[in-house]
Amino acid sequence: MDDGLAMRKIVWVGLAVFGLSAAPATRDSPPGFSPESAKEQQRTERALQEIPQPLSAEAHLRVLTRDPHVAGTPADYQTAQYVLQKFRDYGWDAELVEYEAYLPYPRSVTVELAEPTVLALDLREPALDPDPDSSHPDVWPGWHAYSPSGEVTAPVIYVNYGREEDFNRLRSLKLDVRGSIVLVRYGKNYRGSKVRLAEERGAAGVLIYSDPEDDGYGQGEVYPRGAWLPERGLQRGSINSGNASGDPTTPGWASTKGARHLPIAEAEGIPRIPSAPLSYSDAHKILQRLQGPTVPKGWQGGLPLPYRVGPGPARVHLKVDMDHQIRPLWNVMARMTGAVYPDEWVLLGNHRDAWVHGAVDPSSGTAALLEVARALGEIKSSGMQPKRTLVLGNWDGEEYALIGSVEWVEEHARELSEKVVAYINCDSAVVNIQQGFVAGGTSSLKRVLREVTREVRAPGTDESVYDTWLEQARKKARQQHQDCDCPPPRDVETEISLLGGGSDFVGFAHHLAVPSLSVAFGDDYGVYHSVYDDFQWMKNFGDPTFEYHATMARILAMLAARLAGADLIPYDFGTYARDVRSHLTQLEKRAAELGTRLVLREESRLTWKWEEEARRFDDARERSLRHRRSKSWPAVNRALIQMERNFLSPTGLPGRAWFKHLLHAPGIYTGYGAWALPGLRHAVETKDGKALAQERAHLQAALEKMIRDLRAARKLL
Amino acid sequence: MDDGLAMRKIVWVGLAVFGLSAAPATRDSPPGFSPESAKEQQRTERALQEIPQPLSAEAHLRVLTRDPHVAGTPADYQTAQYVLQKFRDYGWDAELVEYEAYLPYPRSVTVELAEPTVLALDLREPALDPDPDSSHPDVWPGWHAYSPSGEVTAPVIYVNYGREEDFNRLRSLKLDVRGSIVLVRYGKNYRGSKVRLAEERGAAGVLIYSDPEDDGYGQGEVYPRGAWLPERGLQRGSINSGNASGDPTTPGWASTKGARHLPIAEAEGIPRIPSAPLSYSDAHKILQRLQGPTVPKGWQGGLPLPYRVGPGPARVHLKVDMDHQIRPLWNVMARMTGAVYPDEWVLLGNHRDAWVHGAVDPSSGTAALLEVARALGEIKSSGMQPKRTLVLGNWDGEEYALIGSVEWVEEHARELSEKVVAYINCDSAVVNIQQGFVAGGTSSLKRVLREVTREVRAPGTDESVYDTWLEQARKKARQQHQDCDCPPPRDVETEISLLGGGSDFVGFAHHLAVPSLSVAFGDDYGVYHSVYDDFQWMKNFGDPTFEYHATMARILAMLAARLAGADLIPYDFGTYARDVRSHLTQLEKRAAELGTRLVLREESRLTWKWEEEARRFDDARERSLRHRRSKSWPAVNRALIQMERNFLSPTGLPGRAWFKHLLHAPGIYTGYGAWALPGLRHAVETKDGKALAQERAHLQAALEKMIRDLRAARKLL
Repeated sequence: MDDGLAMRKIVWVGLAVFGLSAAPATRDSPPGFSPESAKEQQRTERALQEIPQPLSAEAHLRVLTRDPHVAGTPADYQTAQYVLQKFRDYGWDAELVEYEAYLPYPRSVTVELAEPTVLALDLREPALDPDPDSSHPDVWPGWHAYSPSGEVTAPVIYVNYGREEDFNRLRSLKLDVRGSIVLVRYGKNYRGSKVRLAEERGAAGVLIYSDPEDDGYGQGEVYPRGAWLPERGLQRGSINSGNASGDPTTPGWASTKGARHLPIAEAEGIPRIPSAPLSYSDAHKILQRLQGPTVPKGWQGGLPLPYRVGPGPARVHLKVDMDHQIRPLWNVMARMTGAVYPDEWVLLGNHRDAWVHGAVDPSSGTAALLEVARALGEIKSSGMQPKRTLVLGNWDGEEYALIGSVEWVEEHARELSEKVVAYINCDSAVVNIQQGFVAGGTSSLKRVLREVTREVRAPGTDESVYDTWLEQARKKARQQHQDCDCPPPRDVETEISLLGGGSDFVGFAHHLAVPSLSVAFGDDYGVYHSVYDDFQWMKNFGDPTFEYHATMARILAMLAARLAGADLIPYDFGTYARDVRSHLTQLEKRAAELGTRLVLREESRLTWKWEEEARRFDDARERSLRHRRSKSWPAVNRALIQMERNFLSPTGLPGRAWFKHLLHAPGIYTGYGAWALPGLRHAVETKDGKALAQERAHLQAALEKMIRDLRAARKLL
Repeated sequence: MDDGLAMRKIVWVGLAVFGLSAAPATRDSPPGFSPESAKEQQRTERALQEIPQPLSAEAHLRVLTRDPHVAGTPADYQTAQYVLQKFRDYGWDAELVEYEAYLPYPRSVTVELAEPTVLALDLREPALDPDPDSSHPDVWPGWHAYSPSGEVTAPVIYVNYGREEDFNRLRSLKLDVRGSIVLVRYGKNYRGSKVRLAEERGAAGVLIYSDPEDDGYGQGEVYPRGAWLPERGLQRGSINSGNASGDPTTPGWASTKGARHLPIAEAEGIPRIPSAPLSYSDAHKILQRLQGPTVPKGWQGGLPLPYRVGPGPARVHLKVDMDHQIRPLWNVMARMTGAVYPDEWVLLGNHRDAWVHGAVDPSSGTAALLEVARALGEIKSSGMQPKRTLVLGNWDGEEYALIGSVEWVEEHARELSEKVVAYINCDSAVVNIQQGFVAGGTSSLKRVLREVTREVRAPGTDESVYDTWLEQARKKARQQHQDCDCPPPRDVETEISLLGGGSDFVGFAHHLAVPSLSVAFGDDYGVYHSVYDDFQWMKNFGDPTFEYHATMARILAMLAARLAGADLIPYDFGTYARDVRSHLTQLEKRAAELGTRLVLREESRLTWKWEEEARRFDDARERSLRHRRSKSWPAVNRALIQMERNFLSPTGLPGRAWFKHLLHAPGIYTGYGAWALPGLRHAVETKDGKALAQERAHLQAALEKMIRDLRAARKLL
C-alpha cells in the first residue's frame, strides 16, 4: 500500500462507475491500522465491494455445475482448468497441485427387499422436468464413499438418527442391532458417525435415508415445485470417520506422487460394513414392513405410518461393489505476494469437487471465491498491492475426506505453521438464505468478522449483514427463552460457533492451530448431495438474483483485505479469554451432570489474567499505531502469528493425536459438531482422573505461555 | 367408628378371603388421627382396599358403554337408572336430581369442498371390525356442541393449533382470517378457545381436525390394530367458552325446573360462528388444496404433504343445523350420613354422560366410582359408619358445560360452602396407563393424596402408586434437565398440578373455594370423543385386565375414608404457603418477561408468616390428638372447613366474576390450563396498575385472614 495516490484515483473511478456507496456504515480506525493506513484501507474496501457482481457469479456457477464432477474424474479436471484459467485471468500467480489419494468409485450398489416380498429399490434419482441437468447421463446412482464392498441379507431394524443416544435407547427396549441391517435417517450427526456406531454395535449393514420430516415435504414444497427433497431424491456422501482427516491411506503425511499408502485393510476410519443411501420413497417400503415395538418418543418421522423398530419381518439384500482405486486429484492454488510482509499469509479456501452438479455444495462457494479473486486482482492491477501475501486454495476431494486441503496442509505443515495469519473457509456460500448468515471460527477472529459484516449490505435491505445477523441471534434468544424457564436474554451478540468438522478448515484449525473462520448463508437444505442440487435449483430457489453470492464475495474479499492490510494483525484476545472461561464453566456443568465435581479454578484464574493482559496489549497496540511507532511492528506481527500455536497439544488429543488443538475438535460420534476443550472433555466423559490431570497441565501451560507471549509482544511495542 | 370391634372382625374376614395384604407400606398415625382412631382407620383402609375388583369394574363398564348416551337422551337416562340402582344396592341413600338445561342436538352438519373441486366430506366414523359397538345405529356423526346453526362458503386458512400465538404468527405473515373458514388441529388448548379466538379475529367458520402427528399414526398403531385414532375417526366436543361454567342460559343460578333461561342470543360464551370436527382423512383433502406460504416452524403436522397456510384455493361449504332445545338431565346423588360430624361432607364426583360410548371418558371413572360405592357400602353394612358424611355425585351434562355439577353447586351453594371438606373428582379414570398417575388439586390436600397413594399398590408391580408416580416425576425432571441448560434436578416430588378447567371440579374449586382433587391414570389418548372410545378399545388397549380401574377405586375410597375418618381434618397449610410463594415468584418472572418490574414483597412475607403459623398449628394438632383433647375438635374442624373460603375474591375475578378463587382459575384462551393468582396475572398481562393494586389488596387481606384464622384455630386446640 505504498501506492496510495494511484489507489485513491481508482477508488473514485470505481465509485463513479457504480454510482453508489455499498458501505452502510464507516469507522475511522479499525483495530490494527494506523490512522493513515486506515484511510487507505477504507478506500480500498469501498472499491473492493463494488467489484463482485451477481451476473458474474451466475456465469461461474453455470460453467462449474454443467457436469457431475466427483473428485478425480475428467469432469473434475475440467473444472480445475476453469478455475486455474480464471485465477490467471484475474492476475494471480496460479497452478494446479496434484495429489494421488484413495478415491474409490462404485461399480454397483444394489438394495432390495428380500422378505416378506421381493422388491427392488431404485437408487437412481429420476430426471424432473423442467430441469435438464437432472437428466445428465453421468449422474451416478446413490452410494456412500468409503463403503467397503460387501453383500449381506439381514432383517432391518430402525434406529432413528443413529446417534449414540438412539442406540442406547434401543438397548433399553431390549433390542440390539447385531447381525441386522440398520435403517437410520439423515440428520443430527455426520453420516460416518452413524455407520461407525452401527458397526461398533455389531450391525451387518447400514441404510441411511432422508426422512420427509427433515428434508422433504415436512419442511416445504419439494423440488421442482419447491426447494425441498422430492420423494425419490437421496443424499450421497462419505462415511469415513477416522481419527485423522485427509486421505485415509496416508494418515499424517501428504499424498504426493509416489508417497507410501497404507493397504486399505490397515487404513483407520474406513467402515467394515457396507452402507448405502435411500430415498424416502424406498425407505417407506421397508418401514411399512417392520413390526416389533412402536418407536420411542422423537423417533417418528414424516412418513404416513406408525414407525416401528423391527427387527423385521422386512429383510433387505444389500450389495456394494467398489473399485478401490488410488486416483489423482487437483487443488488449484493462487498467490498474490505481499508488499510489506511477504512471509505472512492470509488464506482463503473453498473446495470444488461435488457429488453431482453441486450448485450449492460447493460451487456457490467457488463462484464467490472467483469473484473474490477478480476483485482483489482488479484492485492489485490498479497498483495496490496488499501488505501480506494472499493465497487462494480451491481444494479437491473435500467430499471424500477433506483430502485436497489436508494433504496440502500436511505437505507444507512447517511453512504454514510459520507463516499463516488466518485461514478463511467458504465451502457452500449460499445454502438457505432464509436462515441468514452463519459463521464459525476461532475467537481471536470474531471481532474482525463482525466488523467486516457491519460494512457489507445485506441483499434486499438497507441494513448491514451484521444487523440482520444480530436480529437472527436476538430472535433465537427470544425463542429459547420461551422454550425454557430461563431469564430473559440480555446483551445478545451474533453467534460464531466453535469449529467442528466437515469442511476444509479442519487441517488448519485442528491440526496446525491456525486461526480460522468459516462462513455461509444458511446451513441446511433439502437437496444436499442429491442430483437436484443444481443450477436450476439455485436459479429458482437458492439465490435467484445471485445477490447472496456477490454479498459473500464482498465479505470474503473484505476479510482478506483487512487481515492482509493491517499494520498489526487485529487478533482479539480479550474475547478469546472470555470464550475459554465460558467453556471451562460449561465443562464443569457437564461434569456435574455426569455426577463428578470438577472445579477448574486455576484455568479460570488464568483466563482472567489473560483477559487483563489482552486489554493491556490492545491499549499498547492502539498507542503504537496512533504514534506510528512502526519499527517494532514486524517483530510484533511475527509474535502474534505464533500466539495460536500455543494451543497445540504436545501429545495431540487422546486417541486421535492428529487433532492437536487444546480448545476445540470435532465431537467424537457427532462428526460435524464441536467439542470445546476436547482433551479435558474426553477425560470427563470417560471419568479418567489421570488423563484429566495431564490435560489440565497442558491447558494451564498453554494459557501461561499465552500470557507470557502476549506480555512479551506488548513490551516490544 | 364407634364400632371398632365389629369392624375388626370384618377386616380379618376380609383379609382371610382375599388372602393378601394390598398395602405395601403402613404408617402409625396419619395426620389428623388420634392414636386410637389411627389404628381403626388402618384396619378400615386395609379392608376397603380388598373390595374393589377388576371383574366388577369391567361388568359396570360393559353396561355403561353399551349405547351412545349424550346428556338428556333416553340412553343417558338408562345409565342414570343403572347407577341409581347400584348405589341403592350398595346401601346408599340415593336419588335422581333433574335439571333442565340448554342441550342442543344436531339436526345435520355438512362439510364439503366447494372449490377447486366439489367433494363431500364425511363426518360419519366407519364401523371397524372386529368392534361391534362401532357400528351402533345411534352413533351421531361429527358435530360440535354449542355450535350455532349457520351456513358459510369461504376460503380455508390453516392456523396450526389455533392458539393465541398461532393467530399472532399468522398476522406476522401478513395474513388474517377475516371472512375465512379457519382449519386448525386439535391439541394444546381447549377446542372452545380455538373457536373463540377465531371468532374474535373475524373468521366465518371453524373446522377442527385430529392431526395424525398428535392423535394418529404419529403416536402409534391406529385402531383397531393399535390404540390411536384411525384416519376417519374424529373428536366431538363442546365449543362453549363462557366466563361462567354450567348451563350458559342460567349463568350463576341453578337450572332447576321452571328456572328462568336467558334467550340464546343473550347467553354468554356461545360462539356466533359455526364449527365442526374433521377426521385427518378429510383434513388431508383440504390441506392438499391450500396454497399461500408454507407453514412456519412447528405448524407442519403428520400428513404426507407440505402444509400451507392458504387462504384457498380450497373453499369449503360448512352448514350446521342445530335444534336449540332445553332438555332434562339427571345427576345421581348418593349419601352416607356421618356418625360424628354429619354436617361435614366429603364429596366424590364423576360424570356419566358421553359423546358416544365413552369407555374412557367418563365410564372408566363411573365404573371406579361404583366400585368405591360398593366398597364403602360394604364396610358400612358391616357396622362401620364414617365420622363425616360421604356424598357421591354422578354428574350429567359435563360434556356440554359441566352442567350437572355446576347447577347442583349453584343450587346448594350456601350449604356446600358451609359443609364441604373436600371435593374429589374422577372424570376418566383410565386414560393411558403408559403415562402413569396424574393429579391436580388444592395444595392443602396434596399431602393426604400422596399418603394415600403410598398405601395402594401399582398394578403389575411390587411398588406403591406413589413410587411409580415419583419415578415419573424424576424421569421428567431428568428429561427437562437434558433439554435445557438448567441445574440438575434435586428433591423431586410427585407433581400435583394447579386445577385449570375441563371437568366437574370447576364449580367446587373455582366458584365455591372448596379444596379439591382430580385424579386419573394418564391424560392423553387418540380415540378421545370418537366412536372408538368404547368397550373393545378398553379391553384391548386401555386396561385389558381392569386392574387400573380397581386401583383407582382403591385410591378414591381411601381418600374418602381418610378425609371422612380423621378426628381433625388433615389439611396441610405449610405446603400451601410454599406453593403460593412459588406462584408469587413465577408471577414476578412473568412480569419481567413482559418488561415490568414487580416485587410482591408483602405477599411473600405473608406466606412465610403463614408457613410458620401452619407449622405451629400442625404441632398443636398433633399434641391435641396425642393427648386426646377431643373437646375442641368440633370447633376446630368447623374453623378448618372455612379456611379455604378465605381465598374467595370479594369481587370475583376481573371480567369473569363467577370465578372467585384468588389463587387459581382456568387460563384465559387456554381453557384446560390453569392460571395461578389469576387476578394478579390478568393485571400483569394487561399492564393495569390500578387492577394490580386492587388484586394485591385482596390477596394480602386473604393471607392475613388465613394467618389470623389459623392462629385462632390453634388457640382452640
